Amino acid sequence: MDVSSRVERALRAALDPMCAPGAPPRLAAAVYHSVFPAGARIRPQLCLRVAMACGEDVPGLADGVAAAVELMHCASLVHDDLPCFDAALTRRGQPSTHRAFGEPLAVLAGDQLLTLAFEVLARASAAAPLRLGKLVTTVGRGVGMPYGIIAGQGWESEPSIPATLYRRAKTGALFEAAAVGGAVAAGADAEEAEAWRGFGQRIGEAYQIADDMLDVLSNAASAGKPVGRDAALGRPNAASDLGLGASTHLFEQLVDAAILSIPDCPGREDLARWATQVVERIRRRAHVAVSQGAQAEQPEV
Amino acid sequence: MDVSSRVERALRAALDPMCAPGAPPRLAAAVYHSVFPAGARIRPQLCLRVAMACGEDVPGLADGVAAAVELMHCASLVHDDLPCFDAALTRRGQPSTHRAFGEPLAVLAGDQLLTLAFEVLARASAAAPLRLGKLVTTVGRGVGMPYGIIAGQGWESEPSIPATLYRRAKTGALFEAAAVGGAVAAGADAEEAEAWRGFGQRIGEAYQIADDMLDVLSNAASAGKPVGRDAALGRPNAASDLGLGASTHLFEQLVDAAILSIPDCPGREDLARWATQVVERIRRRAHVAVSQGAQAEQPEV
Repeated sequence: MDVSSRVERALRAALDPMCAPGAPPRLAAAVYHSVFPAGARIRPQLCLRVAMACGEDVPGLADGVAAAVELMHCASLVHDDLPCFDAALTRRGQPSTHRAFGEPLAVLAGDQLLTLAFEVLARASAAAPLRLGKLVTTVGRGVGMPYGIIAGQGWESEPSIPATLYRRAKTGALFEAAAVGGAVAAGADAEEAEAWRGFGQRIGEAYQIADDMLDVLSNAASAGKPVGRDAALGRPNAASDLGLGASTHLFEQLVDAAILSIPDCPGREDLARWATQVVERIRRRAHVAVSQGAQAEQPEV
Repeated sequence: MDVSSRVERALRAALDPMCAPGAPPRLAAAVYHSVFPAGARIRPQLCLRVAMACGEDVPGLADGVAAAVELMHCASLVHDDLPCFDAALTRRGQPSTHRAFGEPLAVLAGDQLLTLAFEVLARASAAAPLRLGKLVTTVGRGVGMPYGIIAGQGWESEPSIPATLYRRAKTGALFEAAAVGGAVAAGADAEEAEAWRGFGQRIGEAYQIADDMLDVLSNAASAGKPVGRDAALGRPNAASDLGLGASTHLFEQLVDAAILSIPDCPGREDLARWATQVVERIRRRAHVAVSQGAQAEQPEV
């Protein structure tokens, strides 16, 4: 089974128990709407690729960790899209959850996804219970205060936003959790697993810079969500803050550093190849956006 | 150290790591505002009392479970108070979190409390890691879909609300988690721990019925929060649905059944005595409310 199919199967398995008889059906539907159809699923793929590179020994455990990380990402999107934050009307090419189901069910869908992620870790760890503590703290660190995605979002309510801390918390932290969590799932001890943090962080930061460039350059139809939001909402954006040339340079530096930082492991080469392919896809998207942006700057004829 | 002090100390210890340098300070303040000052703290007290009755063997573990359960309760209050749900302006006699810090930070404070609760379980279980899986699933079941407090809140977005399912999910589920979690913390195996579910459920249901009577009868100043909300928001309320006499009768039945259902354990008598005292306090509050309600019905002179 390919990695994408493993991710989708793990997510469906995670959501299934929620729909027992006696559960409120509209909330269940809002949760499904928040997770499917698939976005890029880059975080769970990173998690599974690291677990595969380390040599998985407990079937299903890495799938659970990958699903948990993606559920956390989906939770953050649903809440970030709310009217009190980004007021986004679309997400992944469909109406955002609050637009499709109303604000109360969107708040609850996010809460449910956060809770479910930890339950999924516990379920998946049944065959390797001594790994659960490190998995919960790894995912918790990527999500919560002081440095996780909730902290990243929290910076948007401060009088000034420190760009590097913000970017690392809002995006990097969950990528770190995906990489470290993948290693823990495959049996790495705490020290070995922490060696993966740098890889996750650099991939995450490169991804955020590419996303910033897309926010500045693309159009909403190709991105599947509103664009130009950072400027509209007064948030740090690498492409606007550094300029397009410098942010492209930073992106390439981060990618090189990420691949060099992959720890020694049985599947190092496969993982480097996968990371190179992902980066190539990101580059292509950015180039398309740049050429569209350049076109948009031409006077209409 | 008395049980109330243990609860407050455990909550402060849970929140401390959140405030590391580099964390967004207003979000940290919003989280503190959502947890302090203390409300009734009935759930964490139930958790600690059950752990004590079972004979705690790992110092600090039950404190972590008690804190986790109360953090979940606080998370649900912060989100339930939001403008899209109850739009409550006060809570525990002070401005609700969204009123004090704005809606974005209230959403994030609830998210942070949910996440932190699971991190606290993991931290507290370091000395007994094989108990963590059951603790995460116990707390997760009390909070998430299909039957936890998020499901309870979710019923409010359905066209009709099944009163018993709603009450059990919205209140009972977290009381069950507190009782079962207390037993797990003290070393009960899965079957022994599940024997505590009925006790938690009955105490929780009795508590909710008393709360419903207070919602109907008290005034906002004595309750520390808005009252008469169930009627205003079209929600099931035992006191209005059954009448005051029948709901008082149901309350007494549940209390008797709860105390009879306490499983055999070293501290059974102490626990029964505590439960009796709690119930006596609830009765007194309800009687005060009834007499105030009766007074309110007198024509003003």
